[in-house]
Amino acid sequence: MIFQSIISKIKESNKIAILSHIMPDGDSIGSSLALYNALKKSGADVRFILDDEIPKIYRFLEGSDRIRRPGQFEGFDIIIALDCGDAERLGKSSLYLNNNYVINIDHHVSNNGFGNINLIDKDSAATGEIIYDIIKLLEIEMDRPICECLYTAIVTDTGQFQYSNTTFRTHQIVGDLINNGVNVSLMFEKIYQNNSKEKIVLIKTALSTLEFFHNDAISCISLTLEQMKETKAMDEDTEGIINLARDIDCVEVAIFIKELEPGKIKVGLRSKKKADVAAVALRFGGGGHVHAAGCTVKGTVAEVKGKILEAVAEELGR
Amino acid sequence: MIFQSIISKIKESNKIAILSHIMPDGDSIGSSLALYNALKKSGADVRFILDDEIPKIYRFLEGSDRIRRPGQFEGFDIIIALDCGDAERLGKSSLYLNNNYVINIDHHVSNNGFGNINLIDKDSAATGEIIYDIIKLLEIEMDRPICECLYTAIVTDTGQFQYSNTTFRTHQIVGDLINNGVNVSLMFEKIYQNNSKEKIVLIKTALSTLEFFHNDAISCISLTLEQMKETKAMDEDTEGIINLARDIDCVEVAIFIKELEPGKIKVGLRSKKKADVAAVALRFGGGGHVHAAGCTVKGTVAEVKGKILEAVAEELGR
Repeated sequence: MIFQSIISKIKESNKIAILSHIMPDGDSIGSSLALYNALKKSGADVRFILDDEIPKIYRFLEGSDRIRRPGQFEGFDIIIALDCGDAERLGKSSLYLNNNYVINIDHHVSNNGFGNINLIDKDSAATGEIIYDIIKLLEIEMDRPICECLYTAIVTDTGQFQYSNTTFRTHQIVGDLINNGVNVSLMFEKIYQNNSKEKIVLIKTALSTLEFFHNDAISCISLTLEQMKETKAMDEDTEGIINLARDIDCVEVAIFIKELEPGKIKVGLRSKKKADVAAVALRFGGGGHVHAAGCTVKGTVAEVKGKILEAVAEELGR
Repeated sequence: MIFQSIISKIKESNKIAILSHIMPDGDSIGSSLALYNALKKSGADVRFILDDEIPKIYRFLEGSDRIRRPGQFEGFDIIIALDCGDAERLGKSSLYLNNNYVINIDHHVSNNGFGNINLIDKDSAATGEIIYDIIKLLEIEMDRPICECLYTAIVTDTGQFQYSNTTFRTHQIVGDLINNGVNVSLMFEKIYQNNSKEKIVLIKTALSTLEFFHNDAISCISLTLEQMKETKAMDEDTEGIINLARDIDCVEVAIFIKELEPGKIKVGLRSKKKADVAAVALRFGGGGHVHAAGCTVKGTVAEVKGKILEAVAEELGR
C-alpha cells in the first residue's frame, strides 16, 4: 500500500528533490545516487541536494559530481528524504520540507515519521535495499551505475555483510546487482583499499601503545592529544581502533583511551563473553551495553588508565 | 550427469571416507565437515581423515572434534576427496586412493583429475558451493550446523565476498544458509575476531617499519629474522601484511621485504594502476603478475631494500 502510494506519487511528479543526512555515509550516498540516476533516466527533473561534501572514496559513483548544495531552488513537486531519522539530520536541506509534499524513506527504527508518506522498514539492512524495490516497482532498468550505487549502500551498512542486519534478502539483492554488472573486486578496491596515509600512521601509532594486562585478558590502546596531532589524522579515523585490541583470542576486555583535551579523557570499552563493561563505565559516570560501553573521565592519560584497569580487573574477578 | 553419478554412488555406499588437503583452510574444512555431517545424518558410516590439525578458529564447527588422522582404516566403499588439486596435496591421506573408488570434487582449475569421477567446477567460488548442491541433491536436510560449515567455506574462500570469484550464485547460496539458521555476526566473531596475540604484535612491528618514498607513491614494510623471532609469530601470520602498505590512497606500489635467512631476502610487490611489478621482479629473477609479483634476492635487508626501491622508482618514472 505505502509502496504503491510512493510509486504513484513519483510517477506523477516531474520536478523532484532528493535529500539525505549530514555527515553522509555509504548508504545515504549510495541509495540517494541510485534513485537520482534512476529518476534522471526516466526523464524526471531531479536534484540530489546535500549539505556536506561527499567523502572522497564515494566519488567514483555515477552522479556524485552533480550533487547540489542547499540554495534557492523552488517549485518541487515532491521531496524525497532518504536514510534520515528526523528533520534536523537534514541540516540546511531541511528548509525544503516546508510547504512541500515529503516522502520519507528510511530503515532506522528511530525515524520519527516527519514526511507526508513514511516508508520505514527496520528489517532492511540499508535504505539501499528499499530503493532497490522502489526502482524495480518504477520499472526503470537496473544498469551498472545504479547497481554500483546500491551495492555501495548495502556493503557499507552491513559492514561487508557481517552485521546481524544482514539477511537472506540482502544476499538475494546483492546477487541480482552482480548479475546486472557490478564488479565486486573493483568495488572493494574503491571503497576499502583507499585509506588515507594519516589513518595508517594513526593505526601504527595506536598499535605502538598496545599493552596487555591480567594474563593477557585485558588489552589497552591509548592516544594522547600530542600523538593525534603528530599523525595528522582526523578524529573520525579513530573509529574501529578499539577492534584491533578486541579481536585477539586471549582478550576478554579491550580498552581504548583517548585524550580529548588536557585533563579530559574518553574511554571506550569492549568485552566478549561475561564481563559487563557497562557496569564498569557506570562507575565513572558513563554507560552503554554489556559488551560495548564508554565514559569520559577527568585526569591524565596515565591516571585514568590506572583507574580503568583496576575497575576492569575487578569486574573480571567477580 | 556427473552430479547424478556422484549422487548414485554416494547413495549406494555405506562406508565412506572424506579426505582433504594438507594445511587445511576454511573451504577444505568447511566443505568436508558439511558433507561429513550430512552423510552422518543420513546414516552412513563416514570418516573425515585429515593429515594436519584443524586450525583453532574452525574448532567451533560441528564435527571438528571427530576428525581422524590417517591410519589403519579399511574397507571403504568410496573415497571422496575435496578441494584438493592433486594426490600429493592429500599428504599421507593419499594412501586411501589406492584400490579404492575415488570421487574428486574441487573448484581449482588446476585440478589434475586424479579420481574415478571428477567434478571440477572452476566457476564455483568455493568447494563449499558444490557441496551445497550435493547435499541438496542427496535430499538431506540443511540444518544449522551444516549451514555453518558451508558458510565458513564460502566466506573464507571469497575473502568476505570481495574476490572476483564471488558470483550471483554465491550470494544466492549464502542467503539460503542464513534462511536455514546461520547467525552471520556470530560467524564473523568466530572466524575473524580471534587473531593470535602474536599476529597483532607482528602487525604492530611491521607497521613500525612502514616508510614512504617517491612522494608517497611507494610504501615499504620490512621484517628482519630477529623481529620475526621477537614477535613469536608464525610464518603464515605475515600473509596479508603487504595489504596494509598497499591500501593507502596515495600509494601506487607497495613493497614487503622479509628476511628468510641471513643474506636471503624475500620481496613481495603490489601495484594498483599502471606500474608493472612483474617487470621489476623479473629483473631480480622473480616473476608474477602486473599487480602482484615477488622475488628472492641475496643481500642484507638494507641492501635489497635500496636496490628494489631504485628499480620501483624507475618503473614509476617510465
